[in-house]
Amino acid sequence: MKQHAIAIHGGAGTILKSSMTDEKEAAYKNALQAALLAGEKVLEAQGSALDAVEMAVRSLEDNELFNAGKGSVFTHDGKHEMDASIMDGKNLMAGAVAGIDKVKNPVSFARMVMEKTEHVFLSGAGAMELARKLNVQQMHDDYFFTQQRFEQLAEIRNSDKMQLDHSDKKFGTVGAVALDVHGNIAAATSTGGMTNKKFGRVGDSPMIGAGTYANNASCAVSCTGHGEFFIRAVVAYDVACLVEYKGLTLAQACEKVVNDKLVKLGGEGGLIALDKAGNISLVFNSEGMYRGYKRQGEDMYLGIYK
Amino acid sequence: MKQHAIAIHGGAGTILKSSMTDEKEAAYKNALQAALLAGEKVLEAQGSALDAVEMAVRSLEDNELFNAGKGSVFTHDGKHEMDASIMDGKNLMAGAVAGIDKVKNPVSFARMVMEKTEHVFLSGAGAMELARKLNVQQMHDDYFFTQQRFEQLAEIRNSDKMQLDHSDKKFGTVGAVALDVHGNIAAATSTGGMTNKKFGRVGDSPMIGAGTYANNASCAVSCTGHGEFFIRAVVAYDVACLVEYKGLTLAQACEKVVNDKLVKLGGEGGLIALDKAGNISLVFNSEGMYRGYKRQGEDMYLGIYK
Repeated sequence: MKQHAIAIHGGAGTILKSSMTDEKEAAYKNALQAALLAGEKVLEAQGSALDAVEMAVRSLEDNELFNAGKGSVFTHDGKHEMDASIMDGKNLMAGAVAGIDKVKNPVSFARMVMEKTEHVFLSGAGAMELARKLNVQQMHDDYFFTQQRFEQLAEIRNSDKMQLDHSDKKFGTVGAVALDVHGNIAAATSTGGMTNKKFGRVGDSPMIGAGTYANNASCAVSCTGHGEFFIRAVVAYDVACLVEYKGLTLAQACEKVVNDKLVKLGGEGGLIALDKAGNISLVFNSEGMYRGYKRQGEDMYLGIYK
Repeated sequence: MKQHAIAIHGGAGTILKSSMTDEKEAAYKNALQAALLAGEKVLEAQGSALDAVEMAVRSLEDNELFNAGKGSVFTHDGKHEMDASIMDGKNLMAGAVAGIDKVKNPVSFARMVMEKTEHVFLSGAGAMELARKLNVQQMHDDYFFTQQRFEQLAEIRNSDKMQLDHSDKKFGTVGAVALDVHGNIAAATSTGGMTNKKFGRVGDSPMIGAGTYANNASCAVSCTGHGEFFIRAVVAYDVACLVEYKGLTLAQACEKVVNDKLVKLGGEGGLIALDKAGNISLVFNSEGMYRGYKRQGEDMYLGIYK
């Protein structure tokens, strides 16, 4: 039996202590803790890393503080378009959805794509047709309505600007990586995209290799950041390749990708990564990243700022 | 000035000499030759690798023999949903579109996404909104109608079967990689997807890292095959990482990915790859792959079978 472990993130960006109240900070920390505990509960019961990352991400999706699931931002048309993906490091199975609405937990729908279809990646109206066929849990639009998000859209709707999340530069995404007692790892990512998003933009979150990757042979990775740069840099798989092919430690690989390669490209954000040995890296080149991890038998770590 | 070079593919799969007529074979070879010449013309005039792969792929998209652009297969709903992507190895800029219809040359639209928006990847109805805004050339549905494709759909429409292309197992995709005299490389891929496709399925073709990748530091790659496996294996970027991080030659890297890793995963198909030194690899694990390449000052190579 291995020592199990789980790490999560709730987005990165310009998250400054100076613009945070104590109450808000406590609310974020509670939410991160709840998500870690939801995942750890699975791992404690000798459940799979795959189940653990799904449960942790569902917890974050159900909390309106984060830009995923319930707290998703509004598109230009006043709708919600959510993306998610999940990957099992044991067998490289993967599932992803992009541009879906109404679905309560996009990460669970991504898992259904992985397990109940021959496909990996479904998008838009076609994906929603499958959601209805599979009885994926859907909610009315008012479930996804939050006053704060609506005001964010109202502010910039008539501009050409698109915002990654509520503050000036905040990359709203949630994600989890986990190692179970059987020695398997997994990763999952979910997002509500960009406020005032147009043109069916797809970010890195639903892209296996860019926003999410897991392979027992290397590591499990979930990203959050300016998606376009993460796609061009194939970030999640780049970390895995630096570990597997170049022999870097997990920490070195994450550092190289986030604080060297991405910075040179101009890509702001961060990622969480974990490997079979229980190493964990939470790395970001932005002001802050909502993050946390918990290893079996150790104290929980929670962080927001640099 | 470097020696310029270009390579193309028109899909892989069960392509058998025994089921091919001389006429059909000649038609395919003519089409491959025309695409190579379209790309080479750009390179001869000291144009960019990016222009060359776009022109070569446009030529293949305009030919109804291939499952991309004009020759795209029908979805379950009797429509066409096309995907394409393009990447510039000089600066890692990239553009991609998924689930679009009516657009004459999806590869050129992908390039417009790269050059005229802040985004990399647009999909579905939202992408089509941008196509109209940018006056991307659109055609009536009858342009995309080909009797052969329609009969393919009619055969399997009432089944749950999905076909990758017209024969039993043919992965209809087109793609190009090129090296220009300035020493830059680029890659592009375009596809009409799967006959009887449902649920907004997205394959590897529009995914940077999976179906397409280009980086002067390593290589340019365009894939064709059973997309789900190519996504899970992050094929295009895997080739690049094996070259850059593990020090394999381009040929060794392509061989490892296509004839070892993909085979173990169960993924059928192939890829074309090229690097700054002008090395070219055309590798597939299926019965055949429509393919060809042309290096400056050398004879053209065209191939179909193993």
